[in-house]
Amino acid sequence: MNDKTPMRPEDGRTGMPVAVIGLGSMGMGVARSLLRAGLPVSGYDVRPEACRRFEDFGGVAASSPGEVGRGCRAVVILVVNAEQTEEAIFGAGGLAESMEPGSVIVTSATVPPAFAAGLGQRIESAGLYNIDAPVSGGVKKAAEGQLTVMASGPAAAFERCAPLFEAIAAKLYRLGERPGQGSTVKMINQLLAGVHIAAAAEAMALGIKAGADPATLYEVIGNSAGSSWMFQNRVPHILAGDYTPLSAVNIFVKDLGLVLDSARKLTFPLPLTAAAHQIFLGAAAAGHGGEDDSAVIKMYPGIELPKDRKDER
Amino acid sequence: MNDKTPMRPEDGRTGMPVAVIGLGSMGMGVARSLLRAGLPVSGYDVRPEACRRFEDFGGVAASSPGEVGRGCRAVVILVVNAEQTEEAIFGAGGLAESMEPGSVIVTSATVPPAFAAGLGQRIESAGLYNIDAPVSGGVKKAAEGQLTVMASGPAAAFERCAPLFEAIAAKLYRLGERPGQGSTVKMINQLLAGVHIAAAAEAMALGIKAGADPATLYEVIGNSAGSSWMFQNRVPHILAGDYTPLSAVNIFVKDLGLVLDSARKLTFPLPLTAAAHQIFLGAAAAGHGGEDDSAVIKMYPGIELPKDRKDER
Repeated sequence: MNDKTPMRPEDGRTGMPVAVIGLGSMGMGVARSLLRAGLPVSGYDVRPEACRRFEDFGGVAASSPGEVGRGCRAVVILVVNAEQTEEAIFGAGGLAESMEPGSVIVTSATVPPAFAAGLGQRIESAGLYNIDAPVSGGVKKAAEGQLTVMASGPAAAFERCAPLFEAIAAKLYRLGERPGQGSTVKMINQLLAGVHIAAAAEAMALGIKAGADPATLYEVIGNSAGSSWMFQNRVPHILAGDYTPLSAVNIFVKDLGLVLDSARKLTFPLPLTAAAHQIFLGAAAAGHGGEDDSAVIKMYPGIELPKDRKDER
Repeated sequence: MNDKTPMRPEDGRTGMPVAVIGLGSMGMGVARSLLRAGLPVSGYDVRPEACRRFEDFGGVAASSPGEVGRGCRAVVILVVNAEQTEEAIFGAGGLAESMEPGSVIVTSATVPPAFAAGLGQRIESAGLYNIDAPVSGGVKKAAEGQLTVMASGPAAAFERCAPLFEAIAAKLYRLGERPGQGSTVKMINQLLAGVHIAAAAEAMALGIKAGADPATLYEVIGNSAGSSWMFQNRVPHILAGDYTPLSAVNIFVKDLGLVLDSARKLTFPLPLTAAAHQIFLGAAAAGHGGEDDSAVIKMYPGIELPKDRKDER
């Protein structure tokens, strides 16, 4: 896998040609899972160094989304946001110019549900299929091909993409026929994920202030009614004093912002989400935006956080 | 167990005589677990009907905390709050007047850590031991003898209470020698439990507003990074439209209030907890204080919640 010669389709890969646009930590994991499944995989990223890494893993890097789209029947787009997703499809040299009619665009960035619904209509008007398919599980599950996919779109599109989802997902939830339904469920998941990270930080901060041992707190509460997936996953970063970003503070500045914007358009109040968003905004304003999202605990003043033991080695 | 003749110690029960003060849903569960373990168990509650139920289960009801304390070596106090705990011990006809020196008072109501620390000192000054031992797990785990106990106190007291904790707890965490340390961990657990219930309600409310199917949301998010113990436990009440209180809104009005009061004494800000407390206060103000705590979802306006199907039968 690590030799410098890209494995091209003619190198023995068979099955549906697929592609990934956006070769960041999530997209690269998805691309490698597709390669592991033996499919011919092409890819594109605006950063040349990401394209080179992808070729090291055996993929075929292209010079534009349009070039990616020319040869393949299904593309997964795993870029950062709605704007980048739209650019990859409808920008100059985008997928819409090159993909064959009846091909499938799988849009997996976290985007507002209303955007996903509108984009799906435009893709359909261009003679292509869209599956609105945001993912959950993080970088590790992406690399393992074990993502949870919250997907909606036409049944015919799901049929065509069966080998693709087989390669990248542990769970594929089909949430309806219309793009937007997948992004709605993802939005609710992000609401909870963000609030739970901020809650874990607030709880650990108060515990430290009140004199409790942080490691003991983590163990007891992880086995009690106060536990959450995020508490169990993120508090170890705080205990290790290691804020190397697996998912950054800025991601939740963005994602809780999307949740609040979408709710406002529905004239719907989210007092808890709004409070959590302010804590993430505060952390970003204080210069921690690029750190791991567990760094929101740095917004709680006057406590001594566990030190990174790497500094002592 | 259900015949009307109380099983008195001379009826064959052996081992350390123990007692429970406060025979509500939690205390009765603990008392029954102690009876199941074959220990001689006496009990007291201010409500005569609770005492009668306890006798139906085979316990020996007393007419005051002092009378309970006379014959036993360890008492579990599972009343509603700090005031009732103090009254049971130091009020007229209280435990402090009657318990033999070296006996153990296990205080299990959720109370402020500073109160627990001060109370422990007073109990020690009275020649008795105190274990600060709040519990987690709810009514069902109490009835099954499977509680999580977050306990602190002198080693000698834990030795004496070994058969008691064996009977009531699945997990006994020993969190230090000083009363107050157990209540600190419990306080952090309640912070998270309360915030997570409000977050589950806010998330389900937005999902319903945005047109998602509530049952599908529950399934997908229960298997995703947005999940929490409370999401998994409380959302089924919302899906069933059944707000029969297992733990009431008023409990979290009280418990998050305790958390905020304790943090304020430490000059420590809890923005997320404060927002969650306001939602519980709003639900209580709207007349839902006696309903299940999942009824906080009723504070989110303009949505149609799942109906209680019992009404249709």
